[in-house]
Amino acid sequence: MRKEIGIGLLGFGVVGSGVATILHKHREDLQHKLGVPVRIKRVLIKNKEKERDTELPKEAFTDQLEDLLNDDAIDFIVEVFGGTDDAKTAIERSLKAGKGVVTANKDVMAVYGKELLALADENSCDLFYEASVGGGIPLIRTLEDGLASDRISSLLGIVNGTTNFILTKMKEEKKTYEDALAEATALGYAEADPSADVDGIDAARKMAILASLSFSSEVQLDDVFVRGMSVIEDGDLELAEQFGYTIKMAGSAKKDENGIEVAVEPVFVKNEHPLASVNNEFNAVYVYGDAVGETMFYGPGAGSLPTATSVTSDIVAACRNLLLGVNGKRIHSYQYERKVKSDEQKFASYFHRISVQDEIGVLSRLSSIYSHNKASLATVIQHADPKREDADLIFITHAISRDQHLKVIEELKVAPEVNCVLSHYRVEGD
Amino acid sequence: MRKEIGIGLLGFGVVGSGVATILHKHREDLQHKLGVPVRIKRVLIKNKEKERDTELPKEAFTDQLEDLLNDDAIDFIVEVFGGTDDAKTAIERSLKAGKGVVTANKDVMAVYGKELLALADENSCDLFYEASVGGGIPLIRTLEDGLASDRISSLLGIVNGTTNFILTKMKEEKKTYEDALAEATALGYAEADPSADVDGIDAARKMAILASLSFSSEVQLDDVFVRGMSVIEDGDLELAEQFGYTIKMAGSAKKDENGIEVAVEPVFVKNEHPLASVNNEFNAVYVYGDAVGETMFYGPGAGSLPTATSVTSDIVAACRNLLLGVNGKRIHSYQYERKVKSDEQKFASYFHRISVQDEIGVLSRLSSIYSHNKASLATVIQHADPKREDADLIFITHAISRDQHLKVIEELKVAPEVNCVLSHYRVEGD
Repeated sequence: MRKEIGIGLLGFGVVGSGVATILHKHREDLQHKLGVPVRIKRVLIKNKEKERDTELPKEAFTDQLEDLLNDDAIDFIVEVFGGTDDAKTAIERSLKAGKGVVTANKDVMAVYGKELLALADENSCDLFYEASVGGGIPLIRTLEDGLASDRISSLLGIVNGTTNFILTKMKEEKKTYEDALAEATALGYAEADPSADVDGIDAARKMAILASLSFSSEVQLDDVFVRGMSVIEDGDLELAEQFGYTIKMAGSAKKDENGIEVAVEPVFVKNEHPLASVNNEFNAVYVYGDAVGETMFYGPGAGSLPTATSVTSDIVAACRNLLLGVNGKRIHSYQYERKVKSDEQKFASYFHRISVQDEIGVLSRLSSIYSHNKASLATVIQHADPKREDADLIFITHAISRDQHLKVIEELKVAPEVNCVLSHYRVEGD
Repeated sequence: MRKEIGIGLLGFGVVGSGVATILHKHREDLQHKLGVPVRIKRVLIKNKEKERDTELPKEAFTDQLEDLLNDDAIDFIVEVFGGTDDAKTAIERSLKAGKGVVTANKDVMAVYGKELLALADENSCDLFYEASVGGGIPLIRTLEDGLASDRISSLLGIVNGTTNFILTKMKEEKKTYEDALAEATALGYAEADPSADVDGIDAARKMAILASLSFSSEVQLDDVFVRGMSVIEDGDLELAEQFGYTIKMAGSAKKDENGIEVAVEPVFVKNEHPLASVNNEFNAVYVYGDAVGETMFYGPGAGSLPTATSVTSDIVAACRNLLLGVNGKRIHSYQYERKVKSDEQKFASYFHRISVQDEIGVLSRLSSIYSHNKASLATVIQHADPKREDADLIFITHAISRDQHLKVIEELKVAPEVNCVLSHYRVEGD
């Protein structure tokens, strides 16, 4: 009978120190759950001399990965470095050394997930990555276990707290994008360089991970269509509201017999949809399963302790497997071949906002662009301003293919009556 | 190596036939996940002669429990009978026969859960009960695994679809209680005898199960304070709306150093709280964990296929354990002694609506009842109707103990100026 479980921690930043805090604060609960104590044995950091506010002894800290890999008292490795190359190498070396890995690293898992899970299987090790998506929301476990018997047909998720915070502040408090971003930065939600968030890259990584798992099929990061939030024009949020929608920076993943489509972009979400009222830094993923129907999982998308909670729950799962001697027994191979839909196979309603010259007959001429592309229209509205010579035309289509949508937009752009296509969005939740 | 996993199904009603449908429709996905096929071998029913629309052969159906218990090809038992005594006996006999059990039975688990889990442990069998609460929402797995490392301090949940459907129709479509109930019955959400739903008993069973698990402490059904929805008076829903609240039939569970409090009753939920916008037959449980903060899990609370999805996900978990040879290895003992708070230790804001004679000085005289009970007031509003001689007074308190609340109500009832105390509610989500 094992006396304790030893952990090697890679990194001691916000998440790493959060993990140490939770393991310390909840040590009695964890010992009750597992029957043995769980202890952090060594911590890999860059600078051994730095002062740290921690319960761990100074000798626990080292700058040599070997000190962890060669230590028999360390049962598995918890990677909370962040970044890509170093983290990937460290995960590989840990697995090859026969040590299971818990990681919070979406950058690594989105790109190398398939490869690393195969390596874990080869070495009969666990590789858990709950904290790589959804911060404190136990999404991966829910998709793997809670909905294990169902076939998931679509996901719609707010998986980036920074952009959701910015959009909430812009909508509710009428802040400018710049002011909302500054507030997000001040509160620690946004990074110094917020581009991975606002351009949708962070969300795309998470959606690739979630879609792979939900559809049991490889989804490469390049398969994710990405459109950043800079496409949102002045007035779009108010317009959305007038029509009963909220603009959300959302990830979507759908699967049907033609294949998979995954996207991250600002979309119009119907206000009645539960995702429309997910505000501020919160994340939520709405899951549609064939049998279960609609479910939604909501919680803090980021933050030291929420993310550390997910990491620590993975640690508990890895400990249980270790105590039962059943590490690395998950089947990680994908059931289906990777098959990505073409633009002709992706269907949705679209919202188009077009600035036009306010002349007689413009509406009928532009409508004809839709009709000859066989794009049927649900709503057409003219927003004329008597003081201006131009006007905004709003078209909301019925479900059309993305190909039709793009053709319509191209033709609108060059139509003589059109000043410009101000904005266009996919519509979700109808 | 095992060639297949055999299941014995107890009951073939809406959930049982749903389980059979999912196991059949998703058989390839399940075989991929588990490596072996899962088959229903025998089904226990009352009437062998009844015609059934099913893929299962007629010989699979029997009216003798022994046929299942003595069949070596049956690895575990899935109980979807419903009811209490027969179901409890069947679960006990299955466990004693060394067969693990998956059950959807909240009646049994709320009252006999502790005893049955101990019996499962003794016999090294799994006893899974995800579908006993929350229909299709994987709540138990989330509390056990997804938030395994956290310490849960409170739950607030809509765990009964019927009452939520009725309240939604009353609020959104201004239906009467009777009309809304009739609609719920017509749609199959409410039972022929809806009293277990509308009186809060069904929700109380679920809350006892969820609270026991969340707090790792026994919670008996009698520990749950229950108040049915019949206490809601005409005009209460509109009044709630005026003050920025929605009335929800909610289960609440809280734990602090004084012990546990669990209740099911109509409460005022602040409109900004995510639970306020959970509508129709949907359920949701809002979980507050020390480290993770706020999370919420939303989905269909009932229905054949959602509930069958939870049962089938439990089947997948039980199959995995069986294949790994690690059945019955969960630690089910409670970490903490049962300790229930007294009314002096339960704190909340309260909303009081009182019909009074519209006389000068009544407000100050009634306010003095609050002040001499040391109940501080957040809001006092007088709703006078010029055409009537009486008026409604609204008091919303700051956090006071339940004991103070009850004392105030008793004194109000006998005050000469008071016609009657029309209604009173606990306030959540502030």
